[in-house]
Amino acid sequence: MKNYIETHKERFFDELFSLLRIPSVSSLEQHKPDMQRCADRLVELLLEAGADEAAVYPTAGHPVVFGQKIIDPSLPTVLVYGHYDVQPVDPIELWQSDPFEPEIRDGAIYARGANDDKGQLFMHIKAFEFMVREGGLKHNVKFILEGEEEIGSPSLAAWAKANKELLKADIILVSDTTMISESVPSINCGMRGLSYVEVKVTGPNKDLHSGHYGGAVANPINVLCDMISSLIDKDGHITVKGFYDDVVELSAEDRAKLSRAPFDMEEYKEFLDINEVKGEKGYTTLERTGIRPCLDVNGIWGGYTGEGAKTVLPSVAHAKISMRLVPNQDSATITKLFSEHFKAIAPDYVKVEVTPHHGGDGFLIPISSPAYKAAEKAMTEVYGIEPVPSRGGGSIPILADLQRILEIDPLLMGFGLERDTIHSPNESYLLKQLFAGMEAIALFYRYY
Amino acid sequence: MKNYIETHKERFFDELFSLLRIPSVSSLEQHKPDMQRCADRLVELLLEAGADEAAVYPTAGHPVVFGQKIIDPSLPTVLVYGHYDVQPVDPIELWQSDPFEPEIRDGAIYARGANDDKGQLFMHIKAFEFMVREGGLKHNVKFILEGEEEIGSPSLAAWAKANKELLKADIILVSDTTMISESVPSINCGMRGLSYVEVKVTGPNKDLHSGHYGGAVANPINVLCDMISSLIDKDGHITVKGFYDDVVELSAEDRAKLSRAPFDMEEYKEFLDINEVKGEKGYTTLERTGIRPCLDVNGIWGGYTGEGAKTVLPSVAHAKISMRLVPNQDSATITKLFSEHFKAIAPDYVKVEVTPHHGGDGFLIPISSPAYKAAEKAMTEVYGIEPVPSRGGGSIPILADLQRILEIDPLLMGFGLERDTIHSPNESYLLKQLFAGMEAIALFYRYY
Repeated sequence: MKNYIETHKERFFDELFSLLRIPSVSSLEQHKPDMQRCADRLVELLLEAGADEAAVYPTAGHPVVFGQKIIDPSLPTVLVYGHYDVQPVDPIELWQSDPFEPEIRDGAIYARGANDDKGQLFMHIKAFEFMVREGGLKHNVKFILEGEEEIGSPSLAAWAKANKELLKADIILVSDTTMISESVPSINCGMRGLSYVEVKVTGPNKDLHSGHYGGAVANPINVLCDMISSLIDKDGHITVKGFYDDVVELSAEDRAKLSRAPFDMEEYKEFLDINEVKGEKGYTTLERTGIRPCLDVNGIWGGYTGEGAKTVLPSVAHAKISMRLVPNQDSATITKLFSEHFKAIAPDYVKVEVTPHHGGDGFLIPISSPAYKAAEKAMTEVYGIEPVPSRGGGSIPILADLQRILEIDPLLMGFGLERDTIHSPNESYLLKQLFAGMEAIALFYRYY
Repeated sequence: MKNYIETHKERFFDELFSLLRIPSVSSLEQHKPDMQRCADRLVELLLEAGADEAAVYPTAGHPVVFGQKIIDPSLPTVLVYGHYDVQPVDPIELWQSDPFEPEIRDGAIYARGANDDKGQLFMHIKAFEFMVREGGLKHNVKFILEGEEEIGSPSLAAWAKANKELLKADIILVSDTTMISESVPSINCGMRGLSYVEVKVTGPNKDLHSGHYGGAVANPINVLCDMISSLIDKDGHITVKGFYDDVVELSAEDRAKLSRAPFDMEEYKEFLDINEVKGEKGYTTLERTGIRPCLDVNGIWGGYTGEGAKTVLPSVAHAKISMRLVPNQDSATITKLFSEHFKAIAPDYVKVEVTPHHGGDGFLIPISSPAYKAAEKAMTEVYGIEPVPSRGGGSIPILADLQRILEIDPLLMGFGLERDTIHSPNESYLLKQLFAGMEAIALFYRYY
């Protein structure tokens, strides 16, 4: 594959950039036409790469792209999952270059979606193309590329149920995660689930002059802060009633295995420019993101947020709050528990609304499977060392659904790195990882 | 004055509306030209009303307008203070009509500044015009109208110091406050001071994916909520070290006198649509806004605040926090105490910045003065009952400065009502109050 990459590099950039230039932000209504454009472009790329058929399929939300090449129904089938939608770009002012005009700087592509997940799904299309054109293909390959991962995949589960036969495969191959570091390859063997809610706290029915009412009428921002503050105790435990009921404690043995993953605390703190880490008492940093649930405020707003000073006692305050869950915690149950808890702790002097956004369950992947072994061999060959099994802190809620609906295990070969700052300004993807990923994927097919 | 109002009503509306149409928002850079326009228009109105001279004076910030009519230097001089700047209009979507296109609905003028303070200062110009034209003027009258009250009057104190002779007077007459209710006239005999700061809490040096880092890295929004929550204890006391050191406790007698002001808790709660009030333990609602300091978050923002969900662990979180102070508390001292306290309680895993905005001291007005007696008599005549001395919860920080610099006591005859919702959407001013104010002001001159 190495030579093939060298020969076709410039075309690869052109093709990937054509995807990155489409602002396919799934959460924003205004980008609806861009979703269709991006899906259409993927169909072209799949057909050019050698798919027998590829098409855009409408759903209740953004369309899915399905394409395949069946060389022999009796051979094993790989179902590649990816998503072509991206996160919003704000705060836009922190981007060093246009998020939708990709730029190569210091050996990396900078653009929204450079890694997550356009860059990573592109590796699969190119590894597939290489095998088709150079004659190495000995599997049936199917692609399912959705446009709603960043908003919780509301439509794909239903589509998968309705198209179960079409999606029949032996493994779901996914590149939408990270490796531990540039020099420490890893394979994800579990991901966290997610529960995401928006809360609204209303005090007085109108914005008030803070001089006339301050001190006598509850300020919904102060109350929201009190309520949020009470959600996590001093030991880092989430106080939502029943929150930990379904959390499975890992055995000492399993914890020891996971702790094999190298981790440099000083490097970690330096990368983030923080003096101290913070998390649940009794767990290491990797455990806190890998095997333990957590709660984060993802956004908060209320009152006057413009320049200068305004002496307002606002009527409402809002927050977006998400919880990362571990396997065995049920997303819908947790959302319900949170909602009940948040309403229960609301003082008499405010009114509270809780609106669920998307969510999904976590999952675990058996590391003894032939697919895992093939991935391990492929990555060992590319990186020169054996990859570490790791537990990802993020969530790809749809994978738990697909695993259940299609009865196929996913395999997560991710090539992202921390430095890529996905979901943040200046998202990037190292060219080195882009190409290493293509090689490793091609080798995976060889050993699977 | 009643007949004069009846005769000239339509012209009064035209003139006042011409002021209200100018979006003189002092806190927003983009409105700088509007400040000048508004000042120019005030000069015209003062000259038309009968001032001998009136002009716009530049300052380091927005200009001040000064005008006067000296009929005999040996007669007593009234210095009218007012401000032509207004608060921002957001949330703009809650306005029922354009904030800068005044509209009369249900007997009230709706516009930003309808009351605060364009409507109220306009009463003084018209009462002055009436006395000039109908021959009743027996005082020298001076007007000082500033354009920076809503941002803490950063320039007027210096201007007053430099123009002390020009501003020489016997009383500073101000209409920039409220009465207790439509049927309960009151005269403000004290106002709270203000300390206003902006805080910024920084966690990691970039926005992070909340799945990859959530649970292991301190989220600055959660930390900001914790810090804000800790600023007020369960009894409603502010926890900033040294905050209450200079607060003077009122005697039981003084508290009894203030409690004469009628107050209907059910009406109050209904007006605000709240189930419960909230404030410092041991004090009534009127005491909480009149004689006790308080702390409010006026604005908060951080992370993703757009539609839908974004799983970000943000780098920074911000809040605007103000404290209302009581006489004898020094604004600069409190700002310093707050800043020290806020930095002291910041945990190791975040960095904190505190930026002071404007502030000012509270003040008290002697109710035994001839000016107070004249105002009392004037209001009794207009409203049919004797006005109650009250303590305003708001702040006009510049008045404490002018009192000190010019050595003249202010007198606060305010005609606003709670229902006017100044600083909020749909600010209004009842025509009844606009005209009653003109009458009362004209009578004040008669009895002073």
